[in-house]
Amino acid sequence: MISKAEAKKRVLFVGGGGVGSIGALNLELGGLAEVTLALRSNYKTVVEKGYDITSCDHGRVEGWRPTHVLDHIPNILSESLPPYDYIVLATKNIPDIPPTLSSLLFPAVTPSHTAIVLIQNGLNIEKPLLEAFPTNCVLSGISFIGAHETRHGVIEQADVDRLSIGAFRNPNLIREDEEAVAREFVRIYGAGGKTDCVYEADVPYQRWRKLIYNTCLNSICAITGMDTGRIQLQPRLLTTIVRPAMEEVRLAALSCGIALPLDIADTMIAADAIDMYGAPSMLVDIQKGNFIEVENLLGEPLREGRARGVEMGTVGWLYEVCGALQWRERDRRGMVERPERREYASVGR
Amino acid sequence: MISKAEAKKRVLFVGGGGVGSIGALNLELGGLAEVTLALRSNYKTVVEKGYDITSCDHGRVEGWRPTHVLDHIPNILSESLPPYDYIVLATKNIPDIPPTLSSLLFPAVTPSHTAIVLIQNGLNIEKPLLEAFPTNCVLSGISFIGAHETRHGVIEQADVDRLSIGAFRNPNLIREDEEAVAREFVRIYGAGGKTDCVYEADVPYQRWRKLIYNTCLNSICAITGMDTGRIQLQPRLLTTIVRPAMEEVRLAALSCGIALPLDIADTMIAADAIDMYGAPSMLVDIQKGNFIEVENLLGEPLREGRARGVEMGTVGWLYEVCGALQWRERDRRGMVERPERREYASVGR
Repeated sequence: MISKAEAKKRVLFVGGGGVGSIGALNLELGGLAEVTLALRSNYKTVVEKGYDITSCDHGRVEGWRPTHVLDHIPNILSESLPPYDYIVLATKNIPDIPPTLSSLLFPAVTPSHTAIVLIQNGLNIEKPLLEAFPTNCVLSGISFIGAHETRHGVIEQADVDRLSIGAFRNPNLIREDEEAVAREFVRIYGAGGKTDCVYEADVPYQRWRKLIYNTCLNSICAITGMDTGRIQLQPRLLTTIVRPAMEEVRLAALSCGIALPLDIADTMIAADAIDMYGAPSMLVDIQKGNFIEVENLLGEPLREGRARGVEMGTVGWLYEVCGALQWRERDRRGMVERPERREYASVGR
Repeated sequence: MISKAEAKKRVLFVGGGGVGSIGALNLELGGLAEVTLALRSNYKTVVEKGYDITSCDHGRVEGWRPTHVLDHIPNILSESLPPYDYIVLATKNIPDIPPTLSSLLFPAVTPSHTAIVLIQNGLNIEKPLLEAFPTNCVLSGISFIGAHETRHGVIEQADVDRLSIGAFRNPNLIREDEEAVAREFVRIYGAGGKTDCVYEADVPYQRWRKLIYNTCLNSICAITGMDTGRIQLQPRLLTTIVRPAMEEVRLAALSCGIALPLDIADTMIAADAIDMYGAPSMLVDIQKGNFIEVENLLGEPLREGRARGVEMGTVGWLYEVCGALQWRERDRRGMVERPERREYASVGR
């Protein structure tokens, strides 16, 4: 007797760069999901030619497209679409620059049904979504994939796709139900057999752990214009800035009940996904003229630690300078109002 | 009865950018000095075509050259030259990058005779020169000239040439003699009547005063890639970084016996030589791929303050990050030894 084929999950993937394209490919190869990919800058290229993927997990894949490719986030009501089971966000998360993620997602989310998966860095990223969608499950995705879009539609994946999935706590839902939704996503994502996708029970621990790297190393790379390999070669910079900042984040985590290993700084300074002089995300964003994820990577851990009395002078410093870099990018895009000529006073002698 | 014409002073000017070219012009127009200008990058242009100067003090001056133009600092013994009365340094002062200024000057200095005039920013710049030339007078020049070399040999001076001259204390000389040498330089520099060149008795006060600007604003401009006008428009950055740093420098000065006005920060934040969005020197150097004056503008005031127990966390931070920018420039020029591939450890989950 042949069992009835399992109904495919409807997954909307938002963002089709390195993480999104490989994620969409994994899901469709697993056969348990039908993927709609919502794209922006690379939409035209992907619709016309498909993705050109060179991957350590999948080899060469040319002209690949998921089931649906869109140039917008769909409105399920006005477009008469069935509900999405999962909406996966694989974009940057920059709450200080409008529009908000929740306003973008609003037309695509079915209350009490759609689970929202945030494959994004930083702390407290679930909060605005839980506020906007109080009856929906919000999942945490922490990705260590070494995949990049080198130009529109061209993806290079040099490092195995490792993804941790767990549930952010939504007090309106039952914990066991959230866990089941997370485990279900792990199952459909891992069904193709090419990924290292695991269920992770302790989401806050994993988020704080990655912040040790992102708050302290990622930011100093953005500020100094150097990759982590070059930072690692400057003992003074490590001693005076990177390690103090990492210790501050460790203590902030501890103040929130998260006990990271005492030697977490050593682990993070020695570590990187690629064994070359690779630019971390904030440096890449600075170099490309993108906005940086300053609030989720620096502002949130700073506010959490300071609210609990943790001294965070070095992280505060990194935060203010990264905030100035964000201001510079807003200015460059004409988003800052400033006088043609500045107020002037002669300094004299 | 006609008096015998005053013998012209022999002045060697090292560095012929904005400050050096206008300085050399002032000296020769005054008629009391014969100037030798030692150039590097713009030597060929100046020898062939002379300077093309557009100046608020002097109007349009085309094809101008001082009496002598050299492509090196002369060796007065091997070249059989008479001694120089003054050697004026109008170059950057970067003691962390060899060769040292004193080794460069050595062949041109006549012991017990040549006065060395440092038209340069920062603290303790006289120390290596007094060590190398213990019987010579070393003068401080603080320039507020708004002159720039826009391309080789082309000088634009938008702001009046204001120069303060005083003597650094050399314990081997008599204070009154040093003062007389300084006043003599003011006289020959100001003889043309177009400059605002004054004798300044309190050199340490003037040096610390200018550091309020250079240590705190100049550096944050270099780090964030923004001019002072844009920094001035960011109240948070002023509150969290610029003002705390300025207060630290004020207290460091006070610990050295220099009482700057309590509102010096307001004066320096509101002030600038030009009423536009003008890049200060460290930002210009970063943009041009030059080394920055990190030790004299940041390292020295930091060390002086800390040695006297002043807390200088914010200036320390600015110093370390500017030091990293200096490392980056050394790396860019191949002056850093670093492994082809970096040490690698997988961060794991």
